Amino acid sequence: MSVTLKELAELVGGRLSGDGLTAINAAAPIASAGEGDITFVANKKYEKYLESTAASAVVLSDGIAFDRLPAIFHDNPYYAFALILDRLYPEKEPYSRGIDPAARVADSAILGNGVSVGALSFVGEKSVIGDNSIISPQVFIGREVQIGGGCKVYPRVTILDGTKIGDRVTLHSGTVIGSDGFGYASHEKGLKKVSQVGWVEIDDEVEIGANVTIDRGALGPTRVGRGTKIDNLVQIAHNVEIGQDCIIVAQVGISGSTKLGNGVILAGQVGLVGHIELGDGVMVGAQSGVSRSIPAGKRYFGYPAREIMETKRIEASLRKLPELLKRVKALEEKS
Amino acid sequence: MSVTLKELAELVGGRLSGDGLTAINAAAPIASAGEGDITFVANKKYEKYLESTAASAVVLSDGIAFDRLPAIFHDNPYYAFALILDRLYPEKEPYSRGIDPAARVADSAILGNGVSVGALSFVGEKSVIGDNSIISPQVFIGREVQIGGGCKVYPRVTILDGTKIGDRVTLHSGTVIGSDGFGYASHEKGLKKVSQVGWVEIDDEVEIGANVTIDRGALGPTRVGRGTKIDNLVQIAHNVEIGQDCIIVAQVGISGSTKLGNGVILAGQVGLVGHIELGDGVMVGAQSGVSRSIPAGKRYFGYPAREIMETKRIEASLRKLPELLKRVKALEEKS
Amino acid sequence: MSVTLKELAELVGGRLSGDGLTAINAAAPIASAGEGDITFVANKKYEKYLESTAASAVVLSDGIAFDRLPAIFHDNPYYAFALILDRLYPEKEPYSRGIDPAARVADSAILGNGVSVGALSFVGEKSVIGDNSIISPQVFIGREVQIGGGCKVYPRVTILDGTKIGDRVTLHSGTVIGSDGFGYASHEKGLKKVSQVGWVEIDDEVEIGANVTIDRGALGPTRVGRGTKIDNLVQIAHNVEIGQDCIIVAQVGISGSTKLGNGVILAGQVGLVGHIELGDGVMVGAQSGVSRSIPAGKRYFGYPAREIMETKRIEASLRKLPELLKRVKALEEKS
Repeated sequence: MSVTLKELAELVGGRLSGDGLTAINAAAPIASAGEGDITFVANKKYEKYLESTAASAVVLSDGIAFDRLPAIFHDNPYYAFALILDRLYPEKEPYSRGIDPAARVADSAILGNGVSVGALSFVGEKSVIGDNSIISPQVFIGREVQIGGGCKVYPRVTILDGTKIGDRVTLHSGTVIGSDGFGYASHEKGLKKVSQVGWVEIDDEVEIGANVTIDRGALGPTRVGRGTKIDNLVQIAHNVEIGQDCIIVAQVGISGSTKLGNGVILAGQVGLVGHIELGDGVMVGAQSGVSRSIPAGKRYFGYPAREIMETKRIEASLRKLPELLKRVKALEEKS
Repeated sequence: MSVTLKELAELVGGRLSGDGLTAINAAAPIASAGEGDITFVANKKYEKYLESTAASAVVLSDGIAFDRLPAIFHDNPYYAFALILDRLYPEKEPYSRGIDPAARVADSAILGNGVSVGALSFVGEKSVIGDNSIISPQVFIGREVQIGGGCKVYPRVTILDGTKIGDRVTLHSGTVIGSDGFGYASHEKGLKKVSQVGWVEIDDEVEIGANVTIDRGALGPTRVGRGTKIDNLVQIAHNVEIGQDCIIVAQVGISGSTKLGNGVILAGQVGLVGHIELGDGVMVGAQSGVSRSIPAGKRYFGYPAREIMETKRIEASLRKLPELLKRVKALEEKS
Repeated sequence: MSVTLKELAELVGGRLSGDGLTAINAAAPIASAGEGDITFVANKKYEKYLESTAASAVVLSDGIAFDRLPAIFHDNPYYAFALILDRLYPEKEPYSRGIDPAARVADSAILGNGVSVGALSFVGEKSVIGDNSIISPQVFIGREVQIGGGCKVYPRVTILDGTKIGDRVTLHSGTVIGSDGFGYASHEKGLKKVSQVGWVEIDDEVEIGANVTIDRGALGPTRVGRGTKIDNLVQIAHNVEIGQDCIIVAQVGISGSTKLGNGVILAGQVGLVGHIELGDGVMVGAQSGVSRSIPAGKRYFGYPAREIMETKRIEASLRKLPELLKRVKALEEKS
């Protein structure tokens, strides 16, 4: 698959600079790209490679002065590059077409047109899978699960009974949707399990990484809103509600019944306690520990999490603390 | 399945208020419950919904004044509600009864009465599974594994060679029991693997969440005591010993050879170093980092973890630190 | 399998003390060892058990004075003990020999001599597996995967398309290699997935724990260098490059494009932001949050991570902070 740079510039609506007939076959990182490769710069740290890259072309931000190589200039170079990747790398075929003879699909399951179910997968009773969804090999789908159309379920995903999944959802390997929430009532004889009789609802266009766990609601649903993206090894407890277009980075943990608005960003390893609310557009820095609700639009950071400027002020002061102890001692001796 | 409120009140030994003939079909969250639903309040945050809930009945704490709807009053409403859930939602059937023809069970494995082994599961040589245990589809059970009676193993659990599991244990999807501990001896040529020749022992009534990892002992056992509950994505290293009725919340990590007494509570994302001991009843707050042993009954919090009151005093002081620097400077200029 | 202590002393090149004909059948922890067991002490915490252990023999550090039991003295007792374990506990057999009839192996896959592929495993098109590698039951291997010789892949590992794995690599259960990196370009309509068209490369002698996730590169490879050991539940993002002989403890998260030199040690639950570099021999303490590059040889600790001595000084001062506030108040009142 070879494409001209001109064709790619037109595809993304960018400004072409240099030879539009430059042939592009592949995309590669700027430091290792070679003949036939296109690369990009969207992070200042990588601009230094512009002088030496052996790529055949570069996608760049509008403002940058660069004419050493053919280029496409765009006001959103990362987005433009994403569109180019879709052109250069077409969607992969499923591992097999149709229902693999080595899959176990219940008679009462209803599969749409063009659905693939891979070898060694299991689809339970009364589950429904929408048109053109791809269920890879070794997937587990329980009973009365609803999966929309155009979904992509990678190998070794587990989707337990009663889960409802929208359209064009992607689930990566090892992820478990609909495990029991962590609920026990303590009483005189120990801990009594509280049956978890709710379910999980995942809206359209959600993508969920590898080895994630999303527990079913204790009562009612645990919800992930449209367009939200969840990275690997994230834990989402029972009855959490996540809004639309949120970004939840790897190893975040969200405790039970906590609610996130739309466009919330949680950086890696953040922990949220249960029963709080984060408003629309809240951003929380890596490893922060959040134990109170956060109003819309705020940026929090730290353990415990505070508004980011307050945390930074405290951090800056902390470095001076050992010396401060000496200064106070000197003052005391003087006085 | 419809039950009268009177019957439920008698079941839990609670005080009935209002119409005992109220028909209950299901349980639902207080904010979304409707006709035929029972709900509960065990957390003050949710009392505000008592004025508006459309549930047919509520389970409440003895002290609360409430007569807008039929209700059951109980001194432990969460526990009472757990009993009601068991009445309303009977245990689910296994995905298939008996040994599924698409399961692979070694000839030398010994299965008790009423055992189910689901499709595409594997049971290795000389493993023993007790009466009425349910092995879901796609489970892996290695060699010489012992599983007691009445256990429930969800899809895609891995139980490796030599693991010993008691009665009425529940294991959720994606969990790995008996992987190798992380042991390497450094020497002049690099890192030499230390063979992990121990095993894992899990006592009765333990429940383990999804995508948990529990490593086998390097020598001898890694142990989880009777009645302990472990949430999702927890890491338990080789030769850890956990007592009875502990609560280990999601994403906790416990390093090698550390010992927990009975009734220990570790909140989410806590980390414990190796070779320490936490006494009976110790509680550790979320994301704390514990590097020393903690005596019985203490509550610790923070990074590094300290007694909770000390951490709170430090936290309160920290907010004043930037200003303190200015105050000391003023004193120095004056003096 | 019984071996004399003399034979073991010769095997490890250690100094024999006491009866060389002592028969050794097994290895056990010092506190529970009995007749026929050998044990070891490599950590001072366990020396107290030397007076009481019922082991038949002990492996000890050269310096220790001890003659209550037969012993082997060695300058690296943990390493010596690792060699003894290999002698006492031979490598386990695979669950089945050859290609199990219940495995699904693509016709175009190429398998070396002595390869085992277990029941219910899947090997995709054009994948290559080297001599004597053991693929356990229920493993997923995608398309065009390369696996070297002498590898050991535990049950329920997922290795996605295009992954390249060297020789003598061990992968533990539940681990996912080659899932998509977490890359989205934000634009006016939300978040656009950036196709992840790179791959994962794992060099010789690497061992990776259970339920780990290693994402494929966005472009080009994510790399794990020769001899590196990775513990359970670790997250390695797209285009991370890890050097040789690194030790990455459980639940660490490494963000995209970050580079580690050789011999780097990351303790449990450490988080690294993206696009930074840690030089050779860097050590980072448990739960630290690293947001900047660290030069070779440095030891960092804390959240945020600082040089370990600075963090310790700050920690020590922090305990005095509540009292310092009072002392400054007293000075102010005096002045």
